[in-house]
Amino acid sequence: MSDEIKEYCGLFGIYKHPDAARMAYLGMFALQHRGEESAGIVASDGQVMTKHIGMGLVEEVFGEADLNRLKGHAAIGHTRYSTTGSSLIKNAQPLQVEYSRGPIAIAHNGNLINALLLRDELEARGSIFQTTIDSEVILHLLAAPEYAHFEEAIKDSLSKLRGAFSLVILREDELIGVRDPNGFRPLCIGTLGEATVLCSETCALDLLGAKFVREVEPGEVVIINRDGIRSLKPFPAVTPSHCIFEHVYFARPDSVIFGDSVHQVRQRLGRRLAREHPADADMVIPVPDSGNSAALGFSLESGIPFEFGFMRNHYVGRTFIQPKQQTRDFQARVKFNPVSAALKGKRVVVVDDSIVRGTTCKTRLKSIRDAGAIEIHMRVSCPPIMHPCFYGIDFPTKNELIARTHSLEDIRKFLEVDSLGFISMEGLLSAVTGPNTNYCTACYSGKYPLPFGPEADKYILERKFSGEAHPVKK
Amino acid sequence: MSDEIKEYCGLFGIYKHPDAARMAYLGMFALQHRGEESAGIVASDGQVMTKHIGMGLVEEVFGEADLNRLKGHAAIGHTRYSTTGSSLIKNAQPLQVEYSRGPIAIAHNGNLINALLLRDELEARGSIFQTTIDSEVILHLLAAPEYAHFEEAIKDSLSKLRGAFSLVILREDELIGVRDPNGFRPLCIGTLGEATVLCSETCALDLLGAKFVREVEPGEVVIINRDGIRSLKPFPAVTPSHCIFEHVYFARPDSVIFGDSVHQVRQRLGRRLAREHPADADMVIPVPDSGNSAALGFSLESGIPFEFGFMRNHYVGRTFIQPKQQTRDFQARVKFNPVSAALKGKRVVVVDDSIVRGTTCKTRLKSIRDAGAIEIHMRVSCPPIMHPCFYGIDFPTKNELIARTHSLEDIRKFLEVDSLGFISMEGLLSAVTGPNTNYCTACYSGKYPLPFGPEADKYILERKFSGEAHPVKK
Amino acid sequence: MSDEIKEYCGLFGIYKHPDAARMAYLGMFALQHRGEESAGIVASDGQVMTKHIGMGLVEEVFGEADLNRLKGHAAIGHTRYSTTGSSLIKNAQPLQVEYSRGPIAIAHNGNLINALLLRDELEARGSIFQTTIDSEVILHLLAAPEYAHFEEAIKDSLSKLRGAFSLVILREDELIGVRDPNGFRPLCIGTLGEATVLCSETCALDLLGAKFVREVEPGEVVIINRDGIRSLKPFPAVTPSHCIFEHVYFARPDSVIFGDSVHQVRQRLGRRLAREHPADADMVIPVPDSGNSAALGFSLESGIPFEFGFMRNHYVGRTFIQPKQQTRDFQARVKFNPVSAALKGKRVVVVDDSIVRGTTCKTRLKSIRDAGAIEIHMRVSCPPIMHPCFYGIDFPTKNELIARTHSLEDIRKFLEVDSLGFISMEGLLSAVTGPNTNYCTACYSGKYPLPFGPEADKYILERKFSGEAHPVKK
Amino acid sequence: MSDEIKEYCGLFGIYKHPDAARMAYLGMFALQHRGEESAGIVASDGQVMTKHIGMGLVEEVFGEADLNRLKGHAAIGHTRYSTTGSSLIKNAQPLQVEYSRGPIAIAHNGNLINALLLRDELEARGSIFQTTIDSEVILHLLAAPEYAHFEEAIKDSLSKLRGAFSLVILREDELIGVRDPNGFRPLCIGTLGEATVLCSETCALDLLGAKFVREVEPGEVVIINRDGIRSLKPFPAVTPSHCIFEHVYFARPDSVIFGDSVHQVRQRLGRRLAREHPADADMVIPVPDSGNSAALGFSLESGIPFEFGFMRNHYVGRTFIQPKQQTRDFQARVKFNPVSAALKGKRVVVVDDSIVRGTTCKTRLKSIRDAGAIEIHMRVSCPPIMHPCFYGIDFPTKNELIARTHSLEDIRKFLEVDSLGFISMEGLLSAVTGPNTNYCTACYSGKYPLPFGPEADKYILERKFSGEAHPVKK
Repeated sequence: MSDEIKEYCGLFGIYKHPDAARMAYLGMFALQHRGEESAGIVASDGQVMTKHIGMGLVEEVFGEADLNRLKGHAAIGHTRYSTTGSSLIKNAQPLQVEYSRGPIAIAHNGNLINALLLRDELEARGSIFQTTIDSEVILHLLAAPEYAHFEEAIKDSLSKLRGAFSLVILREDELIGVRDPNGFRPLCIGTLGEATVLCSETCALDLLGAKFVREVEPGEVVIINRDGIRSLKPFPAVTPSHCIFEHVYFARPDSVIFGDSVHQVRQRLGRRLAREHPADADMVIPVPDSGNSAALGFSLESGIPFEFGFMRNHYVGRTFIQPKQQTRDFQARVKFNPVSAALKGKRVVVVDDSIVRGTTCKTRLKSIRDAGAIEIHMRVSCPPIMHPCFYGIDFPTKNELIARTHSLEDIRKFLEVDSLGFISMEGLLSAVTGPNTNYCTACYSGKYPLPFGPEADKYILERKFSGEAHPVKK
Repeated sequence: MSDEIKEYCGLFGIYKHPDAARMAYLGMFALQHRGEESAGIVASDGQVMTKHIGMGLVEEVFGEADLNRLKGHAAIGHTRYSTTGSSLIKNAQPLQVEYSRGPIAIAHNGNLINALLLRDELEARGSIFQTTIDSEVILHLLAAPEYAHFEEAIKDSLSKLRGAFSLVILREDELIGVRDPNGFRPLCIGTLGEATVLCSETCALDLLGAKFVREVEPGEVVIINRDGIRSLKPFPAVTPSHCIFEHVYFARPDSVIFGDSVHQVRQRLGRRLAREHPADADMVIPVPDSGNSAALGFSLESGIPFEFGFMRNHYVGRTFIQPKQQTRDFQARVKFNPVSAALKGKRVVVVDDSIVRGTTCKTRLKSIRDAGAIEIHMRVSCPPIMHPCFYGIDFPTKNELIARTHSLEDIRKFLEVDSLGFISMEGLLSAVTGPNTNYCTACYSGKYPLPFGPEADKYILERKFSGEAHPVKK
Repeated sequence: MSDEIKEYCGLFGIYKHPDAARMAYLGMFALQHRGEESAGIVASDGQVMTKHIGMGLVEEVFGEADLNRLKGHAAIGHTRYSTTGSSLIKNAQPLQVEYSRGPIAIAHNGNLINALLLRDELEARGSIFQTTIDSEVILHLLAAPEYAHFEEAIKDSLSKLRGAFSLVILREDELIGVRDPNGFRPLCIGTLGEATVLCSETCALDLLGAKFVREVEPGEVVIINRDGIRSLKPFPAVTPSHCIFEHVYFARPDSVIFGDSVHQVRQRLGRRLAREHPADADMVIPVPDSGNSAALGFSLESGIPFEFGFMRNHYVGRTFIQPKQQTRDFQARVKFNPVSAALKGKRVVVVDDSIVRGTTCKTRLKSIRDAGAIEIHMRVSCPPIMHPCFYGIDFPTKNELIARTHSLEDIRKFLEVDSLGFISMEGLLSAVTGPNTNYCTACYSGKYPLPFGPEADKYILERKFSGEAHPVKK
Repeated sequence: MSDEIKEYCGLFGIYKHPDAARMAYLGMFALQHRGEESAGIVASDGQVMTKHIGMGLVEEVFGEADLNRLKGHAAIGHTRYSTTGSSLIKNAQPLQVEYSRGPIAIAHNGNLINALLLRDELEARGSIFQTTIDSEVILHLLAAPEYAHFEEAIKDSLSKLRGAFSLVILREDELIGVRDPNGFRPLCIGTLGEATVLCSETCALDLLGAKFVREVEPGEVVIINRDGIRSLKPFPAVTPSHCIFEHVYFARPDSVIFGDSVHQVRQRLGRRLAREHPADADMVIPVPDSGNSAALGFSLESGIPFEFGFMRNHYVGRTFIQPKQQTRDFQARVKFNPVSAALKGKRVVVVDDSIVRGTTCKTRLKSIRDAGAIEIHMRVSCPPIMHPCFYGIDFPTKNELIARTHSLEDIRKFLEVDSLGFISMEGLLSAVTGPNTNYCTACYSGKYPLPFGPEADKYILERKFSGEAHPVKK
């Protein structure tokens, strides 16, 4: 029931395509699930850069005229839900500026844990800031006068960053892709005829009919220009820490990330869940669509028939007007209507990807019971979420995480279900093919892969838990 | 693959609710699948009627201010895709007029086959027409000066109509529901506290938390006012002819219509299909969402595992900008991306509700093969569509129906599949619980339940196949 | 200060022009002052009629795409401020319908005094009404089945109308212009190459570069089609009663109506005013723009220099947000700022076209005094308005007309001016060149040129003074 | 006929008013003529700054919700037509950033002649630029780390600027007004109760009902905060060079700038023009509205009666659709229709403020002749414009200035008038009360008050005449 977590960011870049902006537009459609708040494209024809950014979905932000204006053979695009910086147009990405080396644009997925510290240092040096997004810090670092050339600038300035950062950067005639040393967030490389593509997930390649080449490696910088593609490794090697929650919830099932098919990982999670927490029931139903793959896995492993217990209403958008005196579970019901004919008198296993606050989950389960289900067995395809994420996922604050404040039995009672089972940490890690140590599981385990210095603590204190954007300076 | 057929009309009515318009708004959300072209509500406070109508989805047409302006305890609403009358705001419903008995509003689902004839008669009597929708004819008939009171007017004027007509009518302080003698289109009655609700499908009752009471019977007129609910039967009784295509495609799976759960009917169709056209395969996948229930039935009956082979992109709306030089199957791919990891090297049964033109189907199947499927067995949960519908479904014209112009083997070759199976007519009718004679199957069989007079032929000739709205008169 | 009176209606028609709708669009710009509430065009290519109507200014209602859709060589257009029928899109004109003779469209300037009576008769005959505008009554009359051909229909049905009606009517391949026997409202004929033009004022001809031919005569019907232009005189001849308020305020100064240049009539009014009510002052200033011509006349006659005492802010539109705690005269000041440098220490004659409620006038005069004027002599270029208009001008109700409720001296005190002079009735009539008896002066004199029957009284009672749109019928 | 020159910028600032943003909104209405392209307000409540900016008129950019969001007791506002930086939302002002001293916002009227040079220096120091407006340079200068406190920063950084700059600056709890040493552009101080107001012209004070106190002096910096108002004079004193074109065209007639009433200056220009270039004619008519005051002066001095020869159509906005095959003078005619009745057979003096390209003037004069004028005597209330302005006025490039490329007689022939007279330079300067040396007349005389260094030449070369925004750097 992770739709309580708003998605965060999708990246796209393309070089050497006659209609680069339009390709970015299409690619961003496939990445729309990674950010519904704003969308932007910056294109370059080798000399002039053009930008179009707006609040809303890709389809709302871009019209024919906008795409026609975005001329050039290179472009980067960004879909966003903000994890830092408030929800304003000025914080929409890509960010585009001019500096001593000409125009440059950047788009960022992830979260820096030393952004405020770096910003303070930069302001002390005389920098002015027009946004509150991390990426502006990166641009100021890149623009520092001491570097002899761009490659030196990018190597040195990126070394100052701590946290999660997958980046696409556009120069006049060059596209750059960056993934932080830990490889928290995905970023992959594809080819579309002569063009090279960078994007957060392979589903964007599929839509374009592009061929998947490989993922950008953790700690790798790829520079794509007229001379081809070149790879730098400016960072000391560290053990990767891929965000496992990408597999659990964020990524699209038809994508391949961190070397695994998301759909298959989720199906394996469902199978494992069936073994860890079997249930005596008549049917397995998913919470659509995030629970679909795991529910299918649960059904296949347990032999309990899969059913569509919820009918999803695709028409409910962002401007839906609520009834004045709504019953408690109206909001849940308007999106998912239980199929009474299927549920009546049945013992039901409900599979979802995660439980965050628990409130939406509760109302959905209630609607199933009201529709006639006589037993409900809740199964969750990730362990209890108990810790905040500092690398780009916008979980609610600690006290709102039901698994942090309630025992398993209390959650079961709160949800009013007959049984409740979360997959174990071992189960979770058994579903991915990489070594267990290669994944970040901090939100379940509290084990953060990056050590906090005082700066990160400050950041955490001031930013994540106060809810404040930025303290006023004197 | 019936999304080539645009949906047609959803009806809603409510009486004796303090917030009638808002209830109509919510109910129309649940009926949005029955018409995405325009939406309208007329409300009455017992004296003054207020109307708001617009092109687009319910959510786009109505804002807070619009709903607040629609005051009163009674309201009717309409979502529409046009089957007669062109796609203009003036043809959006409900239609509201004033006449000798005061204000009246009407909304119509279905299609009259003698509308032009009636219109010619009315024009000869001096009537002027402001729209090209059937409903305006009904209002002119109701307004004829010869009737002593409204009940006589409604009985007599409705008797002149031929064709399919489920109606909701709003007077100053009265709500009327009508279903034609054949009961082509659904209409049901529910209660929400003190209020009485009329709506096309039960899913609208579910959303409101209203209780399903019964369907309006074929040939029944229900009059709902301060004195309660009263039932008239002004028509001679005939054998019903419920549109079986409502079960195949139109209605939502979570609705109950014509006495059956739509989801269960579709699942039975899938089971029957598995018996009629078994396949040796590794997985069964639906074309989402219309093929979901039947695919599940096929899987359950055959024992072949169900899989999610297509990932649906929910973000593709009506203003999506196509690529300039799009590959042939781009349009199909942007909506449904095949999940390569699941399909690679697999023998696949694909289940869909119907095949109309066949072109969209073909491109979708091709994308599955490109994703690695090694065998494709296409199964269709209704018989071949070979005849036009004159009762409200907007099929393409005869020559575009692939089943009319191609043999089964030719269709298979066209679709480039390894095998192809349509359910039989017997199979289709075995899935519903009513007597076989109670359903209209004209689109498959060519057996039209209503005899054509010259007027209907004229209508068919001039209107349905010419594509002309209305011949210019001298 | 007649901007308290909202303008009412502008008519345009054109026949035999390759780009008829675009010409209508341009012509309506020149007639925008006659109605800022809604605008509409109906075009015909000889067979198919197309309509576009919207709320707002011509420029807001029509875009390129709308004009391109309005195909054909004939078109009528309408700009409107409502005097009957409430301010809703359904009441915007032209009204377009189909009836036994095919499609027809109509646009109306003026007001029928027997509209309700006719409507009651029509409803009793079975007519249904979709709007509350007078024009719909006319169409129902035209559609009556008893007429052998259109010419008979138009002659007979127009004979049933009482009141003010300048009309433009569009048939498939025919344009008709009508002016009521009294000729209350203007309507003129021009030619633009091969095309014939009808419009409310000659300024629309000027804009198109069309040549003024003559006015449609009172009681004349002109029929323009492939055979040329034909004139009918279906009404018994009566003495005309041209609305003199058109000269005083409504019409544009650059127009010629009822045989006179509006600018010259107003200048003569100003000269006469100077003779009737001389003043010892340093300057004459107009209330812009309606007082400009008269003020100039006053200056020329009196020898007192003309000055621009008010600076008009052209940017204040309809969505201007008022300050929360506005001073009393803010609203007046935001539109007209007094030019202190010119006014300081001066004795000022202020000339305006009329005084209606008096409140706006008062605040404007106060702003002049605050700007330093030491004496203010108010001069008004029409007599005191004391009676309602039933022929199409939307004056406030009786009790709001300051001249009805206050003596001249009381008005002077209310306005806080040093002297006040209204032109006399003789003075008013001396400025136009037609015989005195040819003008309607009912708003000043109470002498209504059309006798009231009981139906008109009913109309007046129910409609004009109650403010009610239409009583609910049982 | 200076409407070929797009206006440039209006400034507003207010401190210590409970509804500061709403006052800014109102003040900007009065300054709308100084920039119709974009509008913006930044407000501060002493801690948090809020910004709202948009393309379009003040009335279009701001709604109730926007104003309510702009909380605080201090605000600055800006209306703009761009003279540097292209016409994009990112270049709309005020510009607001954060730097080491907290948030700061700035709005600028005028043009720096060393902006590019300063920008190059700043980029070499590592600055990044997000806009192409001069104001961003000023902020970077202010943010330099070497200053001990804000007052030092403002003194030193402003000293580096060359060119025209009236500025309003907003800090968390401080409003600052700046006028460059030459005082090219106006800026004045007023009081509204306890609040202090800064604005470009006094007409904004009038609208608010504020009291005019004095102009900000050339070279003065006023700092307004809780401690009151403080004045700094950080620049060496120089002879002022007020832009005389403000009096000729830009400023509103009801304003007082540079110590003179604009209306009175223009009237004196008209009187002088009558003496320098008398004419034997029947009437004097202005090109509305910019020629009004001068035409009146010409009439008063010459005794030739003033007339309204043009009727201005107030409804022609920015989205007006042109006819497809427009006659050559349509565009002129749609805005100003000649009043034939007044002009027919008359000898006419036409007074306008200036002639720039001459094309619009020509078509307007032609329409007067077509309307029947038998002689046309063109009189212009400023000398021939022959040189570009580098201080903020967006004249066309040199070759488009008709007075630069044509002799007086050739211009007369081009305009097809019987006589043509421009006021002399002496005449121009005689109309203002300050010493002749206190005004910049460079556009007439070519005498630029600021010496050009190589940097300014570079600026002129690259920016003004190439039309390029900014050369691409490597």
